[in-house]
Amino acid sequence: MEIEQKIINTMRKLALDEIAEANSGHPGVALGLAPALFAVYKNANIYPKDANWFNRDRIVLSGGHASSVLYATLFLFGYDLSLEDLKEFRTLGSLTPGHPEVNVTSGVDASTGALGQGIAQGVGMCLAEKHIASLYNKKDAKICDHYTFVFCGDGDLMEGISYEALSLAGTFNLNKLIVLYDSNDITMTDSLSVTSAENTKQRFEAMGFDVITVLKGNDYKEIEKAIKKAKTKSKPTLIICKTTIGFGSKLANSAKCHGKPFTKEEVAEICQNFGVSSVPFEVSQDVKEYCAQLSNKNAQNYENWQKIKEEYKQKYPNEFEELFGDNVKRLEKALNKISFKKPISTREASGEILNTLANTLNNFFGGGADVAKSTMAYLNDKGDFSKHNPCGQNIPFGVREHAMGGICNGICLHGGLRTFASTFLIFCDYMRYAIRQSALMDLPVLYLFSHDSIMIGQDGPSHQPIEQVASLRLIPNLAVIRPADANETVSAYKIAIDNPAPTALILSRQTLPILKGSGDDALFGAYVISKEKKKMQAILLASGSEVSLCVQAQEELLKENIDVRVVSMPCAELFLKQTAKYQNSVLPKRCEKILAVDYGCGETFFKFISKTGKVMRINSFGESGKGQEIADLFGINVENIVKNVKKMIK
Amino acid sequence: MEIEQKIINTMRKLALDEIAEANSGHPGVALGLAPALFAVYKNANIYPKDANWFNRDRIVLSGGHASSVLYATLFLFGYDLSLEDLKEFRTLGSLTPGHPEVNVTSGVDASTGALGQGIAQGVGMCLAEKHIASLYNKKDAKICDHYTFVFCGDGDLMEGISYEALSLAGTFNLNKLIVLYDSNDITMTDSLSVTSAENTKQRFEAMGFDVITVLKGNDYKEIEKAIKKAKTKSKPTLIICKTTIGFGSKLANSAKCHGKPFTKEEVAEICQNFGVSSVPFEVSQDVKEYCAQLSNKNAQNYENWQKIKEEYKQKYPNEFEELFGDNVKRLEKALNKISFKKPISTREASGEILNTLANTLNNFFGGGADVAKSTMAYLNDKGDFSKHNPCGQNIPFGVREHAMGGICNGICLHGGLRTFASTFLIFCDYMRYAIRQSALMDLPVLYLFSHDSIMIGQDGPSHQPIEQVASLRLIPNLAVIRPADANETVSAYKIAIDNPAPTALILSRQTLPILKGSGDDALFGAYVISKEKKKMQAILLASGSEVSLCVQAQEELLKENIDVRVVSMPCAELFLKQTAKYQNSVLPKRCEKILAVDYGCGETFFKFISKTGKVMRINSFGESGKGQEIADLFGINVENIVKNVKKMIK
Repeated sequence: MEIEQKIINTMRKLALDEIAEANSGHPGVALGLAPALFAVYKNANIYPKDANWFNRDRIVLSGGHASSVLYATLFLFGYDLSLEDLKEFRTLGSLTPGHPEVNVTSGVDASTGALGQGIAQGVGMCLAEKHIASLYNKKDAKICDHYTFVFCGDGDLMEGISYEALSLAGTFNLNKLIVLYDSNDITMTDSLSVTSAENTKQRFEAMGFDVITVLKGNDYKEIEKAIKKAKTKSKPTLIICKTTIGFGSKLANSAKCHGKPFTKEEVAEICQNFGVSSVPFEVSQDVKEYCAQLSNKNAQNYENWQKIKEEYKQKYPNEFEELFGDNVKRLEKALNKISFKKPISTREASGEILNTLANTLNNFFGGGADVAKSTMAYLNDKGDFSKHNPCGQNIPFGVREHAMGGICNGICLHGGLRTFASTFLIFCDYMRYAIRQSALMDLPVLYLFSHDSIMIGQDGPSHQPIEQVASLRLIPNLAVIRPADANETVSAYKIAIDNPAPTALILSRQTLPILKGSGDDALFGAYVISKEKKKMQAILLASGSEVSLCVQAQEELLKENIDVRVVSMPCAELFLKQTAKYQNSVLPKRCEKILAVDYGCGETFFKFISKTGKVMRINSFGESGKGQEIADLFGINVENIVKNVKKMIK
Repeated sequence: MEIEQKIINTMRKLALDEIAEANSGHPGVALGLAPALFAVYKNANIYPKDANWFNRDRIVLSGGHASSVLYATLFLFGYDLSLEDLKEFRTLGSLTPGHPEVNVTSGVDASTGALGQGIAQGVGMCLAEKHIASLYNKKDAKICDHYTFVFCGDGDLMEGISYEALSLAGTFNLNKLIVLYDSNDITMTDSLSVTSAENTKQRFEAMGFDVITVLKGNDYKEIEKAIKKAKTKSKPTLIICKTTIGFGSKLANSAKCHGKPFTKEEVAEICQNFGVSSVPFEVSQDVKEYCAQLSNKNAQNYENWQKIKEEYKQKYPNEFEELFGDNVKRLEKALNKISFKKPISTREASGEILNTLANTLNNFFGGGADVAKSTMAYLNDKGDFSKHNPCGQNIPFGVREHAMGGICNGICLHGGLRTFASTFLIFCDYMRYAIRQSALMDLPVLYLFSHDSIMIGQDGPSHQPIEQVASLRLIPNLAVIRPADANETVSAYKIAIDNPAPTALILSRQTLPILKGSGDDALFGAYVISKEKKKMQAILLASGSEVSLCVQAQEELLKENIDVRVVSMPCAELFLKQTAKYQNSVLPKRCEKILAVDYGCGETFFKFISKTGKVMRINSFGESGKGQEIADLFGINVENIVKNVKKMIK
C-alpha cells in the first residue's frame, strides 16, 4: 500500500479508535469521508504550526458529526493536537469535543454540528476573502488570497440555510469557494431517495455553480484532480464525491452505521482489513514521518506571506491597522462626537452612527435581508457588493435571513472585517440558530433589528414582535440592547464596538423624543434616567420606546404629588453584571413597587420586580391597525401607567 | 374592453383604493398580480358561499403583502366581504388586515406575510389532500379530490423554507400542487439580479417540477392556459408568470412602487388608463353581474359533493367520524388506559402513547426531521409516506425543520387530519417562525421535541438546549409541556389532544424514574407532586427531569429534619390560567423561600419566586461530556439543591 493511502486508512483507524474509546460518535461518515479530507488537507495552503495564519485556505466541516476523523486529520497534519487528545474524544474539557468547536481545537475554522450552518459560514469566509482582496490587496502586496473549502453531506444540503447561502454564492460568483459534497445516498434514518429525489448537479448548475462529479469518491487521487480543476474555474464549484458510508465495515452503505459506535473488536477487524495497526491509537512510523513532511509543505508560502505582511505594514500602515488592529479607540473617538438633539427613530439614529463609523474605518462589511434601507443599515456611498463590484461594502443578502446570519459568522471567523446583519426584528425568528452560533463562537457580529414592537402598526401580527426581545435576551453571551432614544443608541454602539461577542440592537421604526438625561449611563445596562423629586414612591422600569411613556407618566403623576423614579434598562444582561451596590442604587432591593412597562411580552422584567411589582405587557399576538390604537387596545399607554401606579401605592 | 379584463382592472382599482384609503400597503404587486389571481379564482373549484368547503381547491397567497388585491378578488368573487370592509383595509378590528389572516377573512386559506411560509403551507395542504385521498377515498365516494394553488414572489423563493418544502414536494411528486410565481424581477430594494442570478426553471426541474413559463404574465388567458396544462401534468408544476410590478402606473418596473401608496390623484389617473371608474370603491354594474355568475359557477360541484358526503357518512361512518369529528373522547379513553410503572425516558413514553393514539384513530399524519426514530415520533407499522405509498402515515421530512413546521401548519389548515412534527429540541430554533405561525393561526400542531437538556451529553453545546424551553414558553398561545416522568407525559397528551392551539412536548433522552404522585394533576399546569411532611420550610420547583432531582433532595433534607415541598410545573402557561386559589394552594403567596431548579436558563421561574427565592440554572452554553458530569460542572445536582435550601432557610 502506498503511503498516502496508508495515511487515509490511519485517519479512519484513529477515528474509529476515538469513537470506540468514547463509546459515542459517528463512524459511518468518518470511514467514507477520509479520502476527501486527506485530499483537501494535502492540497490546501495551510500551515499547521500557525493554525490561524490569516492567509490560509479556510476549511469548514459542515457535517460536524464527522469530528472524529477531522481530529485524526488535524493530528496527523501536525496541528496542536496529541494522541492523548484523541483519546479524550467527547470527554468534558477535552480538545476534542463531540462536534468541532472553533475556540477549542487548533485547526478548526468553524464550530459546526447543526446542519447547514457550516455552508453559510464557508460562503461568508469566501465573501470576506473576495472583499478584502479587492479592497486591501495592492499590486505589490497580496495580503489576502486564498480558497475556502467546505465539506458537506446530504443533510447539510437539505437545510434551507444552505440553499440560501449557496444561491448567493452563485449570484456573487464566489469562484474560490470549493464545496465537497460527501454524497453517500444515506441519511440518518434511511436511504436518501426517501427524502430527496433531486438532481443535485442540475440544481447547482442552475444556481451558478460548476459541478464536478467524482464517481470514485473513495479514491483520493480523483478528488485531488477535481480540486485542481475546481481552482481553475471561474465559478464556485461543487465537487460531488460519490462515497460509501461506513466504507470497509460490515455495515457499509447502511444507515445503521451512522451513529452507532463499533465495538473495539469490530474496529480491530476493520483496521486489519485496512492494513493498519489494530492496536488502539497506534500510528506507524512511516505515516508519522510522511505527515511531518506534509505538515511543513507550505512553510515557504507562509514565510513569503510574512514578508508581504511586514512590507504591507510599512507601506500601508492605515490599511494594515484596519485589517489587523482592533481600532476600538478610533471608533470610540468617532462615537464620542455624536449626539442627537432632535426627535428621531432609533433606526435612523443607528443609520447615522453606522455611517459615521464606516467613514472612520473602511473595513465595515455587512447588509440587510432586502430591508437595509428600512432598517437604515445601509452604508451610503460605499456601494453594493456584487461580482462586478467586490469592493462594495453593502452586502445585498436578498430575502435570506438565516444565511445572512451564517454568512456574517463566516465573515467574522475569517477576520479582518467588522460585520453587521440587519432585518426587521420579527424575522430574527428566521435566523435564530445562526445568532446563537455567533454567541457560541464569540463572534462580534452586530445585529441591527428594527421595527421593534406593535408600534409598526398596520402590517399586523405576522410582522409585530411580541416575544422577540425577551427571547433574544435568553441567548447566552449575546448582548441585547434596546435604546430608549437616539443618544442611548450611541451608547449602544459604544458597547457593541468593544464587545468580543455578538450584540443585537433593537431599534424603533417610530420617532422617539430625545430624553433628558439619556446617554452614557446606558453603558451600565440600566440607570435612573429620571430621578424622583424627593421621596420615591414607586419605580417605572422600561426599555426602548416605552421609556418615554414612563417619563410622561412620571410628569402626570407629579401633578398629583406622586413621586416616582424612571429607570431605563436598555440591556438587562449588562445590568446584571454590575456590582450589587450599583444595581441597588438603581433598583433598591427594598423597593416593592416596581411597575415595568413593555410593548411586548415583558418577560425579562420579572427578574427585577418583587411579587408586589407588576409588568404591563402584551400576552397575545398583535393586531393590524395604527400603532397607537393597538397600544391603547392592549392598555399600554400613559393613562394606564398612571392608573397602575396609583393602584400600586395605595 | 371585454368583461373579464374589466374585472381584473377593477381588482387593481379596488386594491389601489384600499391602499390609498389606508395610506399604507403594497401597490406594486397588486397591479402586477391581478391577472394571475383572476385566472386562478375563475378556474378553481371553489364555492364562496361556503368558503370552508372541505373539498375546495386551496389557494394560498404566500406573498401576503399583496393582501389588498386578494381582498378585492374575494369581494368580487362573492366571499363574505363588503365594499365597506375594503374601505377599512389595514384598520384595527377590520376584516381586511395588513396581511391575510385565516381566522379573520372569509376565503383566506392561510395566514401569510412572512415570506416563504405560504409555500410550505401550500405543500402541506397538498400533502394532506394526497394522503386523505389515498386513505379515505372510496371507489364510490371521492371525499377529497382537489388542487392547491400557491402564489409566490421572488422573496418567497429566496427563503430557505420554500426550498425545503418544494424539494419535498418534488420528492413526493405532489402533482396537484400548482405554484404560480409572480416573476417581476424586482425586490423590495432593487432589481432581482442584484440578489439572485438563478435559473429558476432549471432549478425547479432539478427538484422534480414541471415548469411552464408564461411570458405574457399580464394576459390572464395565457395564465388560464397554463393552469389547464398544469392540471394534466404528472408532477408538481411551477408556472412562471413574467409580470410587471406596478403595471399601469408611472412607477411600473421599479422597486419604488413596492411599498409606497399612490396618492388618490395618482390612483384616479391609473383607473382612467385602465378604463374603470376613478370614483373610489365604485364598481360598475356589468362587473358586479358577471362576478355574481362566476361566484356561483361551482354550485353543481358543491351540491354533488354534499351528496357524496352524505352517502359517505352512511356507508363509512367510522372513516367519516375520523375525518370530520373531533374524536377527543375516543382519544381520551385510550389515554386513560395508559399508565407507566417502570422508569423510561419521556421520549419513549411519548412514542408509546403516540402509537396508542394512532392505533385508535387512523388520521394521525406526521413525522420527524430525519430523527423520528430518535425522538420516537414514529408510528409503527403505519408506513412512510412516499409517492408510491401515499397512505403511509409517517412523513419523512428529511433534514428540513423549518419546512416541517410550515407543512404541518398546512396539514392542519387543510383539515381532516391530526398532525405532529418532531426533532431534537435544539433545532426548534430552525423552525421558530413556523411554530409561531401555528400559534397565530390556532392550529393544533403537536410538536414533539426530545433531547431536552445538557443531559444529552457528548454532542456538546451545538446540540444542548439551554434557552429553548424558556424561549418556546414566550410564544403566545403555545402550550409548552415538559413532563417529569412517563405518567406526566400521558397527562401532557391529554392536554394536547384537546388543545385548539399548538402544543409542544419537551421530552427527555435519558431514562427518568416514575415519580410517586405524578399524573393528572399535571393538567393544572403545576401541582404539589411531593408534599411537605408537617411544616413547609421551603418549596422546590422544577419541570421535567429536574423534578426527580428535587424529590431526591427532599428526601435528603428530611433526614436532617428540613421539611420542603416539591412542585412539578410541566406547563407554566396553564398554571397561570388556574384560579388564584389553586395557584396559592400550590405556591402560597406568602412563601418567600422557593428554589427553582433547571438544567437550562430557567427564565420562566422568575415569575413564580419572590426576590428572596433563587433559580439554580445555567447561564452559559453547555459542554461536550457525559450528562451527569456537565450537570455537576454547572452545579445542578441533588447535593447543591440541598445546600441551597439550607442556605435559604437559615
